[in-house]
Amino acid sequence: MNSKKKIKKGKNIPAKAKRVFRGVIFDVWQWKQKMFDGSVEIFEKLRRPDTVNVIPVIGNKIMILKQRQPDWKKEKTSLAGGRIDEGEKPLAAAKRELLEETGYASKNWTLWKEQNPSEKMVWTIYTYIARSCYFKQPPHLDAGEKIKTKLISFDGFIMFSENPDFYEGEIKSSILRARFDKKFRDELYNLFFKK
Amino acid sequence: MNSKKKIKKGKNIPAKAKRVFRGVIFDVWQWKQKMFDGSVEIFEKLRRPDTVNVIPVIGNKIMILKQRQPDWKKEKTSLAGGRIDEGEKPLAAAKRELLEETGYASKNWTLWKEQNPSEKMVWTIYTYIARSCYFKQPPHLDAGEKIKTKLISFDGFIMFSENPDFYEGEIKSSILRARFDKKFRDELYNLFFKK
Repeated sequence: MNSKKKIKKGKNIPAKAKRVFRGVIFDVWQWKQKMFDGSVEIFEKLRRPDTVNVIPVIGNKIMILKQRQPDWKKEKTSLAGGRIDEGEKPLAAAKRELLEETGYASKNWTLWKEQNPSEKMVWTIYTYIARSCYFKQPPHLDAGEKIKTKLISFDGFIMFSENPDFYEGEIKSSILRARFDKKFRDELYNLFFKK
Repeated sequence: MNSKKKIKKGKNIPAKAKRVFRGVIFDVWQWKQKMFDGSVEIFEKLRRPDTVNVIPVIGNKIMILKQRQPDWKKEKTSLAGGRIDEGEKPLAAAKRELLEETGYASKNWTLWKEQNPSEKMVWTIYTYIARSCYFKQPPHLDAGEKIKTKLISFDGFIMFSENPDFYEGEIKSSILRARFDKKFRDELYNLFFKK
């Protein structure tokens, strides 16, 4: 706690806020907030490490993951991805996670989305498209991962928009729109496969 | 901590988990999780009070809120709603929040959605439709709220699907679909106005 300047708060936590809990994933910050009538209340926000998601494109297919974690009751469908390490750049984290989880690499990356899903939490999700992926080396999973990969078509991929077992809630709106809005579908298809 | 049985964990936090932090909004729970290789790591989840959202229908319009909170830099568009008090039923909370924030009441309620947006947080959002709302009494705002109400058409409402200042991310997929899928639009219109 001595090196207070080094603790990243994120832009949605006021400078005067104090970290009142430091967890494995989540930190809790509190501050005294002046209310509209002049009274004061304790306000609270969370901070967690930013994460990356990767949509790996291989030929005319998209690779998705069927994954289990030790505390999950059943398998979920997800993108490749994970937490950004301290000091790591988002794109470097995306490349690392793709290689660790699938064994694939790419030289053609685009940042598709940068989202802050929660008003009460400092947390950014970076979603990348990794085009023309090629197999580089066997995956290297950690002890908390069981992962199988599967190649699906673009039209199969956008059907995940309404699948409750698809883990990536933040991209569901976009792929849902691609199902019903032809112009948007074609633009997204081009973004994934042609850029 | 003596009355351990009384502390609600929620179904996604294992029975053996311990509450390691109790905040104003967020509690943090941790437990020792056996990994796939037999090693053990500390796993962590959050719990926060469940919340209600209300879509108030008045004549052929929907009421939305333009709201400011003391730590927000700008106004946001939202539904009526807020946190469920301890021991309160979701529908009772929905009725209370609608009356406090807008002064309106309804005798015709339907639970539209019950959502758990985050895998790492025990938190349910209940979204209600309140049909045939009528004005009952002046709103009663607390010190952390500045609220104006506005009546909009159904087609205006579903356009919020892609408005970044619309606070209710969890219903954006549904109202987005209503913009592009005529059959779904008509069903949703009937659910809001005709039931």
